[in-house]
Amino acid sequence: MKVEVIPTLYEIRADHIWHKTVIIIDVLRSTSTIVAALAHGFLEVIPVETIGAAKSLKGEGRVLAGERYCKKIPGFTISNSPLEAKGTFPGAKTLVLTTTNGTRAIHKSLKASDVYIASFLNATACASAAVSTKRDITLVCAGTRNEFALEDGLCAGLLIHTILQFVPQCEVSDLGVALSAAYSSLQSDLTDTLMNTLTGRRLTALGLSKDIEFCAQVDRYPLVPLVKEDRIIPWQRT
Amino acid sequence: MKVEVIPTLYEIRADHIWHKTVIIIDVLRSTSTIVAALAHGFLEVIPVETIGAAKSLKGEGRVLAGERYCKKIPGFTISNSPLEAKGTFPGAKTLVLTTTNGTRAIHKSLKASDVYIASFLNATACASAAVSTKRDITLVCAGTRNEFALEDGLCAGLLIHTILQFVPQCEVSDLGVALSAAYSSLQSDLTDTLMNTLTGRRLTALGLSKDIEFCAQVDRYPLVPLVKEDRIIPWQRT
Repeated sequence: MKVEVIPTLYEIRADHIWHKTVIIIDVLRSTSTIVAALAHGFLEVIPVETIGAAKSLKGEGRVLAGERYCKKIPGFTISNSPLEAKGTFPGAKTLVLTTTNGTRAIHKSLKASDVYIASFLNATACASAAVSTKRDITLVCAGTRNEFALEDGLCAGLLIHTILQFVPQCEVSDLGVALSAAYSSLQSDLTDTLMNTLTGRRLTALGLSKDIEFCAQVDRYPLVPLVKEDRIIPWQRT
Repeated sequence: MKVEVIPTLYEIRADHIWHKTVIIIDVLRSTSTIVAALAHGFLEVIPVETIGAAKSLKGEGRVLAGERYCKKIPGFTISNSPLEAKGTFPGAKTLVLTTTNGTRAIHKSLKASDVYIASFLNATACASAAVSTKRDITLVCAGTRNEFALEDGLCAGLLIHTILQFVPQCEVSDLGVALSAAYSSLQSDLTDTLMNTLTGRRLTALGLSKDIEFCAQVDRYPLVPLVKEDRIIPWQRT
């Protein structure tokens, strides 16, 4: 088994995806939001790339969520926020979500054999699910503004750490080794580290540091979101 | 002052270079070879991209060095090897060097305000020289086969570590923070780590592990190679 890491969604190539198990990581905040939504009552999340596509899916039992440049989209019920997504929405079954990077990374990975969604909140569960496929694994860090995002890289590092516990002989790419070592070095101060990344600083300036604190919790949920056609549902071990 | 890291030479853009101080890193092995050559008697290194360009520069006092896919080029005096470059070459003044990635990274960076050459062998001296320019710094990891190379990333991490000692308030990019943390975590086992990178394994399989051991020495030389027009010479503090 091999594991490699793609530093930003813009670097995804066909050979990273085909016949692979892909894990999408966008810690601040879309993959954390997806995990929180499914852990707190939503049955599914529909990721869409544009605001127009989200609006066209408006309907009963559906909540519109999304952000552009870290801010809630006007007219949407909630932002791309895990804290908001775990609120109470009577009768709601579906979260329709559009974000700057995370939903794009999901759409670019749809041709993989399996696509899972990871964040710090569900890292061990996600690593376990990926290992159970017995295929090579590609970790896709969404990144921010075309650049590597530290929070995604550290989550990739934690996933590799965990995958190596399940499969010690697993072959890890050079970037994977670097990120796994970076996670070892920074894990004791994860919340503070996430506050000081490029996106972390932007969210903090917007008064959203509670969201970062929430996203920095490791293994809060034993839940693995699985991308199935055009929607994301909780994965069930068969 | 800001520091950012470019993970491979293929990602260099004009805005990474213009009005910046650039440091080129290709630990295995071209920047280690350049440092060793200048530390052991060569007055200059001429980096060229093609084998033909190297051959056209043949002449008195010149030694041809180079590799393709880790192997010495037929007809050349030495390979891209720091151990070979520190040998004795009576009457030699100039090393003409062509390599797979390192020389290309140098040529792609020529429009920077200053271009220095770094390896583990001269990391502190190079960080000090770069800081003395008082400009923003771009660390260019050459990479291998279009991919991030762990040895270059860890050297970037060491450079950032050192730059932060000189300029504690320096602003470091997300990738820079990750690599600095990775270096902290792996520095105690640097030789073994370098042996196990993608290029390290390839060199070891070719019987070149002594070169890797040599390249893993931190701060062996207080020498900073400076790219000046089409050649590389030892930088002198003014």
